[in-house]
Amino acid sequence: MAVRAAVAGASGYAGGEILRLLASHPEVEVGALTGNSNAGSRLGVLQPHLTPFADRVLEETTVAALAGHDVVFLALPHGQSAAVARELGEGVLVVDCGADFRLSDAQAWQRFYGTPHAGTWPYGLPELPGARAALVGSRRIAVPGCYPTAVSLALVPAYAAGLAEPEAVVVAATGTSGAGKALKPHLLGSEVMGSMSPYGVGGGHRHTPEMVQNLSAAAGERVSVSFTPTLAPMSRGILATCSARARPGTGAEELRAVYEKAYQDEQFVTLLPEGAWPATGHVHGSNSVQLQVALDADAGRLIVVGAVDNLTKGTAGGAVQSMNIALGLPEALGLPAVGTAP
Amino acid sequence: MAVRAAVAGASGYAGGEILRLLASHPEVEVGALTGNSNAGSRLGVLQPHLTPFADRVLEETTVAALAGHDVVFLALPHGQSAAVARELGEGVLVVDCGADFRLSDAQAWQRFYGTPHAGTWPYGLPELPGARAALVGSRRIAVPGCYPTAVSLALVPAYAAGLAEPEAVVVAATGTSGAGKALKPHLLGSEVMGSMSPYGVGGGHRHTPEMVQNLSAAAGERVSVSFTPTLAPMSRGILATCSARARPGTGAEELRAVYEKAYQDEQFVTLLPEGAWPATGHVHGSNSVQLQVALDADAGRLIVVGAVDNLTKGTAGGAVQSMNIALGLPEALGLPAVGTAP
Amino acid sequence: MAVRAAVAGASGYAGGEILRLLASHPEVEVGALTGNSNAGSRLGVLQPHLTPFADRVLEETTVAALAGHDVVFLALPHGQSAAVARELGEGVLVVDCGADFRLSDAQAWQRFYGTPHAGTWPYGLPELPGARAALVGSRRIAVPGCYPTAVSLALVPAYAAGLAEPEAVVVAATGTSGAGKALKPHLLGSEVMGSMSPYGVGGGHRHTPEMVQNLSAAAGERVSVSFTPTLAPMSRGILATCSARARPGTGAEELRAVYEKAYQDEQFVTLLPEGAWPATGHVHGSNSVQLQVALDADAGRLIVVGAVDNLTKGTAGGAVQSMNIALGLPEALGLPAVGTAP
Amino acid sequence: MAVRAAVAGASGYAGGEILRLLASHPEVEVGALTGNSNAGSRLGVLQPHLTPFADRVLEETTVAALAGHDVVFLALPHGQSAAVARELGEGVLVVDCGADFRLSDAQAWQRFYGTPHAGTWPYGLPELPGARAALVGSRRIAVPGCYPTAVSLALVPAYAAGLAEPEAVVVAATGTSGAGKALKPHLLGSEVMGSMSPYGVGGGHRHTPEMVQNLSAAAGERVSVSFTPTLAPMSRGILATCSARARPGTGAEELRAVYEKAYQDEQFVTLLPEGAWPATGHVHGSNSVQLQVALDADAGRLIVVGAVDNLTKGTAGGAVQSMNIALGLPEALGLPAVGTAP
Repeated sequence: MAVRAAVAGASGYAGGEILRLLASHPEVEVGALTGNSNAGSRLGVLQPHLTPFADRVLEETTVAALAGHDVVFLALPHGQSAAVARELGEGVLVVDCGADFRLSDAQAWQRFYGTPHAGTWPYGLPELPGARAALVGSRRIAVPGCYPTAVSLALVPAYAAGLAEPEAVVVAATGTSGAGKALKPHLLGSEVMGSMSPYGVGGGHRHTPEMVQNLSAAAGERVSVSFTPTLAPMSRGILATCSARARPGTGAEELRAVYEKAYQDEQFVTLLPEGAWPATGHVHGSNSVQLQVALDADAGRLIVVGAVDNLTKGTAGGAVQSMNIALGLPEALGLPAVGTAP
Repeated sequence: MAVRAAVAGASGYAGGEILRLLASHPEVEVGALTGNSNAGSRLGVLQPHLTPFADRVLEETTVAALAGHDVVFLALPHGQSAAVARELGEGVLVVDCGADFRLSDAQAWQRFYGTPHAGTWPYGLPELPGARAALVGSRRIAVPGCYPTAVSLALVPAYAAGLAEPEAVVVAATGTSGAGKALKPHLLGSEVMGSMSPYGVGGGHRHTPEMVQNLSAAAGERVSVSFTPTLAPMSRGILATCSARARPGTGAEELRAVYEKAYQDEQFVTLLPEGAWPATGHVHGSNSVQLQVALDADAGRLIVVGAVDNLTKGTAGGAVQSMNIALGLPEALGLPAVGTAP
Repeated sequence: MAVRAAVAGASGYAGGEILRLLASHPEVEVGALTGNSNAGSRLGVLQPHLTPFADRVLEETTVAALAGHDVVFLALPHGQSAAVARELGEGVLVVDCGADFRLSDAQAWQRFYGTPHAGTWPYGLPELPGARAALVGSRRIAVPGCYPTAVSLALVPAYAAGLAEPEAVVVAATGTSGAGKALKPHLLGSEVMGSMSPYGVGGGHRHTPEMVQNLSAAAGERVSVSFTPTLAPMSRGILATCSARARPGTGAEELRAVYEKAYQDEQFVTLLPEGAWPATGHVHGSNSVQLQVALDADAGRLIVVGAVDNLTKGTAGGAVQSMNIALGLPEALGLPAVGTAP
Repeated sequence: MAVRAAVAGASGYAGGEILRLLASHPEVEVGALTGNSNAGSRLGVLQPHLTPFADRVLEETTVAALAGHDVVFLALPHGQSAAVARELGEGVLVVDCGADFRLSDAQAWQRFYGTPHAGTWPYGLPELPGARAALVGSRRIAVPGCYPTAVSLALVPAYAAGLAEPEAVVVAATGTSGAGKALKPHLLGSEVMGSMSPYGVGGGHRHTPEMVQNLSAAAGERVSVSFTPTLAPMSRGILATCSARARPGTGAEELRAVYEKAYQDEQFVTLLPEGAWPATGHVHGSNSVQLQVALDADAGRLIVVGAVDNLTKGTAGGAVQSMNIALGLPEALGLPAVGTAP
């Protein structure tokens, strides 16, 4: 019996990626597709790569349209998920790709998003300690942000093992799809091709409190995160370079052993062999994560670099993986493990 | 019972793409991987995106290594397939991604490749008239060249319907993976990014006789092809702009109707709605083809533009699709229908 | 004594490129900058690369603002130049980068632009037969379109020498800056990177009649042009692949000799040695043009491939070069001859 | 009277960029061009964009070939400059783009380069405190590395003003031309387009001791640098994200004021207005540097982001700028101040 899934926000990049994955998910049947400003349009016009759904017409995002499905994926602007979720009923699995239910710290939410905190849902990053168990059988899932996905997988093992001082420095490059389909001049192809630039420098990016939350939980103390996002001339992918002062006595072998152990049973996270480096191209379109670790003895820092596809593992893949867990399906069902390289 | 497949030439782009597809093919189990200059290396080093096969070690390309499989994919330099195929036995399905068995015209082969003609195998482009039937049950398959895949799908219906004069003009842009992994200065990232250039201008490209063959077969008369390939700043994808003088009396509606009919039952070929244009990004990593047709009344020409992924539908996807047909499996098994866009 | 220049439309790509060139032009002093929707903004915000003019504030595009300059560059939407030019006085050199005064065929103008024809000005492509002489001392210049610049330089010698049949087929790839700074979804970086697509297929592109005009003038008979523009994943550059049936008896050496002779005295046009191919990267940011010719004996066609930078030689460079000629300055003054490669 | 300049290593990216700049330098006449493995080849084949020098033939890099020039630019592999320089005579200005004479710490040289230290020459980054004065009249110049150019300009003012703790963290993205023209698989266009990856993680990059040297000199104490270089999908450009713990009491206004003062008289370094971010595209092909500063109060760090063109300001532009100073020419002569954007 197929799981019936609706996608709210099907005209955006996150919604489109969810549909790309669902198109080859053997247990899911795609139901309603909604999108407010594009309601009434054929999906073939809005998302020309989604051939199997080309003739579907987008509906308004209403509870009526989304009702009657087993799973509802929400790919909506921040702040809109709570109202929809409330109406959908407790039996429906609601997978929220927005930020609304990611943070447990109401104050941090308020400060970065400026609206009242809506609550906290089980966190859709099963590779974090304790996260998978919380997803089993859940009917509400908060899919992590794309940057926090990469950064948390990169640094949580070091913090959980007590190897790092609680001041992390993260510089991450993202493909432009991370900024969505918004029509802004700096996102034009002419501006981004052949050019790299930072944005939100100095602590303002909304994904920062989510990183602080995950790393602090692992460390058992508050971890500060200096986060600088940069825009790279590519459509997809996040390369996160994460570092922290190593706790005295931390050795390179110990560091490596901690990561090997942390991910030895994870099918989507690969600690690369020494000498190999993560590349976003290697995980393009896949749910896979590549990590590498290093200890810089001169600078006294441990460095972890992680590569993910921001739209797949960083959004839609994480959402489908978490859905699989929640519904008791095989965790990897319908998820590409191999990136489309070169 | 799984089909056991070997891949000869697993370290190149074609071989890697075959493995990417086989990794999620539910009926195939991957056996031997070979690669001459890289024999002895772990695949994880050569193809870091192929995580599920990272620990496999490449063997020399010998008949001994390839024996004992149900299917052998050959992704070898031109001229090497015949010797291998001869030894493998008639019961083994040999799928050749090289050029050796694509041409029926021994003279054209000799002229463009400079070696004796090895023969002609059933042609792995099932969407061409008669091709699918010839693949059923076959134990030898010649996978088409990437350019001829795009150009033949774009122009065969027009020629088969008698709409076009027998002088085709084709200008196609390819991603750099079409040139393989060879270490040539003009393929360096620094040279290709932000730059477009032609090559093999004036009729020299080896895919030209293959296009002539397919279009002539459809037209029932010899069709000349003026073919200019260009190198585009992208890794994958072919955009083929194909045109010919329209036969007198050809109308835009008739043209469109011919293409609608030609591909109405083909799951991988989409004639886009009027006003929509093919884009290689839409078919990235998928086995899909996007086509659009137009009639230029002023110039008296019909124009057909086609987009394919040179490595997927243009090579490995075409190979797997043809294998599925030859073995009696569902034709689309294991083949992504949705491109990884954006 | 410096020439005082104003730029109308300074916030767009064409206007910005004019300013980039004028910044290092030893005889020009930049005066008023205008731009309607951006009037009141600092140029540093709109064009962050134009450091020397960062503090300039854009004015409204009015005759008052543009008056009192020796040269006025118009980089305005089509149809706006005539009104401005009329008011500026006959003594002011008006260099129009728009289409308004390019076409001599009022009917063709009307058909492709839908407004009454404004007239015809001396054509700013000095390398065409007779064009340079018409620019000397002129106070009105119509800068050619970017595609017609590439295509005319590529095909005019063949037509002038009677080597080609009067049916040209042109497929050209352009960088996205050719489409301007307009906020359209298909111009987003996420959409264009890694993807090629055509547009305006079938004869609709507005640059077509300009090509027809130039090629017909050279041929002495009407030449039809089948023109397919494509959008390439790069910011700048046009690669135009142009072909036509060769007139009977045309030889490869004769073809080459015609082009050598046509451009032997042109400092910005290079016929590459045999075996070398034009690349847009080689002319990036420069006023240079690279050409290569070939004769395809099998297909009976001559092929000429040309590479230009659409913003430099294709727009702003052509404008400055023509200004230099009109004002009696050295033709190459302030114009980069060497592309920024790699 | 023209300055006569020779370029050793004219077939590489650094040598080619020196020639691009010299082609429009009004006081320089280009003499001998040398290049060992390419001796005997025409430059037009090796560097097709350098049209004005297309017919020049490369000589072997010998003292005989380089003698008789006023200036000799060395763009040679590390370790080869000392021997050449020794023979050229003290009256010749030798501008070394290699690393040989950049470091004053012989031990650091030995550790990172593995050969005996050759000495220390005046450092070609005139914007550093004291550097310009040391270049005036000098006949030996060590051009900085591309990364140290960006990082030193970004962090020296903060260290000189005592605002930062002596542990810097730098993550920088470079275009692939930074890796030179070497034929390595990971530099192929197919590998780098659409993909970001790190390299030399953990302190191994040879530019690290040069950064340590410059920052320590500014701070008056040893500054450690944790440096992670990454390869971005673009040909040119470095975006360096640099941070350090802010010394207690450092305020955002003070930080900004320090940078404003440091660069107020520098024509090639721009501190962007608040809210604007550096982009490598803005400085493409130019000698300009864009900087922005921020204070992250939560994380207690100051962040400085800098954008340079690795080949221009980061190599050839810095070399020509330093030559101008050494020879008493206007510092900006022949140097583009405006990047080729978009």
